[in-house]
Amino acid sequence: MALKIARRGTVPPFIVMDVMRAAAEREATGADTLHLEVGQPSTGLPRKAAERVAELLGSGAPLGYTVALGLPDLRDRIAGHYKAAHGAEVDPRRIVATMGSSAGFILAFLSAFDVGDRVGVTRPGYPAYRHILKALGIEPVPIPVGPETRFQPTAEVLEALDGPPLDGLIVTSPSNPTGTVMPPEELKRVVQWCDAHKVRLISDEIYHGITFGMPAETVAEIAPDAIVVNSFSKYFCMTGWRLGWLVVPEDMVRPIECLAQNLFISPPTLSQHAGIAVFDCGEELEANVRRYARNREVLLDGLPGAGFDRLAPADGAFYLYADVAHRTNDSLTFCRRMLAETGVAATPGVDFDEAEGDRYVRFSFAGSTEDMERAVAALKQWRP
Amino acid sequence: MALKIARRGTVPPFIVMDVMRAAAEREATGADTLHLEVGQPSTGLPRKAAERVAELLGSGAPLGYTVALGLPDLRDRIAGHYKAAHGAEVDPRRIVATMGSSAGFILAFLSAFDVGDRVGVTRPGYPAYRHILKALGIEPVPIPVGPETRFQPTAEVLEALDGPPLDGLIVTSPSNPTGTVMPPEELKRVVQWCDAHKVRLISDEIYHGITFGMPAETVAEIAPDAIVVNSFSKYFCMTGWRLGWLVVPEDMVRPIECLAQNLFISPPTLSQHAGIAVFDCGEELEANVRRYARNREVLLDGLPGAGFDRLAPADGAFYLYADVAHRTNDSLTFCRRMLAETGVAATPGVDFDEAEGDRYVRFSFAGSTEDMERAVAALKQWRP
Repeated sequence: MALKIARRGTVPPFIVMDVMRAAAEREATGADTLHLEVGQPSTGLPRKAAERVAELLGSGAPLGYTVALGLPDLRDRIAGHYKAAHGAEVDPRRIVATMGSSAGFILAFLSAFDVGDRVGVTRPGYPAYRHILKALGIEPVPIPVGPETRFQPTAEVLEALDGPPLDGLIVTSPSNPTGTVMPPEELKRVVQWCDAHKVRLISDEIYHGITFGMPAETVAEIAPDAIVVNSFSKYFCMTGWRLGWLVVPEDMVRPIECLAQNLFISPPTLSQHAGIAVFDCGEELEANVRRYARNREVLLDGLPGAGFDRLAPADGAFYLYADVAHRTNDSLTFCRRMLAETGVAATPGVDFDEAEGDRYVRFSFAGSTEDMERAVAALKQWRP
Repeated sequence: MALKIARRGTVPPFIVMDVMRAAAEREATGADTLHLEVGQPSTGLPRKAAERVAELLGSGAPLGYTVALGLPDLRDRIAGHYKAAHGAEVDPRRIVATMGSSAGFILAFLSAFDVGDRVGVTRPGYPAYRHILKALGIEPVPIPVGPETRFQPTAEVLEALDGPPLDGLIVTSPSNPTGTVMPPEELKRVVQWCDAHKVRLISDEIYHGITFGMPAETVAEIAPDAIVVNSFSKYFCMTGWRLGWLVVPEDMVRPIECLAQNLFISPPTLSQHAGIAVFDCGEELEANVRRYARNREVLLDGLPGAGFDRLAPADGAFYLYADVAHRTNDSLTFCRRMLAETGVAATPGVDFDEAEGDRYVRFSFAGSTEDMERAVAALKQWRP
């Protein structure tokens, strides 16, 4: 007789991954496929950084474990990045390098929350938040948000929540899947609300650096009790390198160091060296952001004419979140048909929103501008 | 007022890391330092594999996320390794590539055990087991083992355990810190005991490939309900690349895939390519094992004359576990003094054994043979 599988370990799959598989299968048959489903830059580690890493590899350096918090040089460069990008003073001792933001979330959640604690997550939102929380025995509390608040929580929304008090709150600005940014003054009010209610704020700033007008503020300086989660995956184009970082409150550095030693030992060493080098690649990285900006224009210009005219304000990240309630009440089937009939892969909202995701589709514009143009043309032709 | 830090997130540090820091500080002053405290090979990724990886980097491949279970080629090569090393048939579909064995443990524990479950861990044993279990809300149940069973659990030891039944059991052969191997027939009896008692067996086989006479058996073929944890860190010399794997029961592949998608997305991409390439580096890897064998002889010959004459049978891994009860009742202070007075860094047993670790010291012989010879000479001179 088979042994039991843990209840808490049984989490739903990422549906985006299943869409990616269907798109890859279609591509393998030779059929034209446009990847507007993928949440990662189509470009890799900038050239100069790749050269530096190849050199290090060739030097025969042993590349063993590093200290658990990450190479001191890397932590210093990250602190310098806060100064350069935000004018913010962040003590490098508060910075923890992690195996992607994935390990960052695990460390943040385990160090901040006990079994049974309640943590607010927006709906729609990145599905892994609630799945990781659940796997770790923490209760995710959905906070429904919509176009009236740019799909972001506000102090009023938080104040109006029913149920027992929250122990934590996750905010994401720019957001996945909506790309919307919290205006700076609204973010400050949410920070104040968390302070007043003794709620540990987790600020996922993974899409920082990719904005189109409205700047995304970091809470690293203004909220000393918050945990900031960030990553080299998006702006820095290092998805497969699995490197991220946390900015943690002073009193959590040592507990998180001990957790990291035991749970992860250290982040990938070569990736840490790549992370140091990538801070010298600003020109190439900014060129990518200009490409995203062009891609965004192509979609904002073209999609309404293809029947996608209810779009969330695409302030940042590389996503457009489209309300398709006038076209379907089953976005998964809608996306499958769209892929089969037009070659355009996009992500049904059901991953991000268990209640209303059936009426939303997420388009990613992290790919090439040509692909965006071809996608718009194909969708304009589509008569579902 | 500072916010609470989670109780379950408060785990003790790895003391070995503190010893490593003290040794590094000593080294930085220019003082001669011999690293017998480090649990990793002094050699890096084999040359041929490093060249292959450098080539891939130079090719401009984007190196984005892979599928969560890992590259199919990598999983195939791992399955082939079971055939080559053990004559065992392991379906590649049961193999899950992970971010080091660290992520492997997190996936194994979350998928197999619920909050409050009880999992047996040997004492002495790798301290991260009990710390990870505790952080995940699982109760580690210490199983004291000693020289009379080669520091390994036996069916009799398990049968004699007091307390409520176990939900899981972790075995490690060769073991850290003792290097001892479970004889094949004893391992089978433990597998049968787990079967009979519906206990999920987790077999940590991270030191496989490094044995000196008695072969270490895998449970991958003989225990279809067990989870095997392994890594590229030790035999394959890839510590800093953070790559490992699991062999999981058929009915756990999909739950673990979903967990991995959410918790980790995918293991480092370049490391996966290095993992594929390293299977072609058998000659260099076997030369390392011959070096460990020589190092072991140097220590086994020399340490008794330096007052370390009560050694666990060093069947495998690169560790010698020495009972120093006749010299100290405080192995931490003993190790600190040994480092300061001889330059030899070793690990006090307190990391591995909360009850009796004060009377044990672990020597690692993963370094160079010259360092082993110098360490023996220095310890023979030592008059503490």
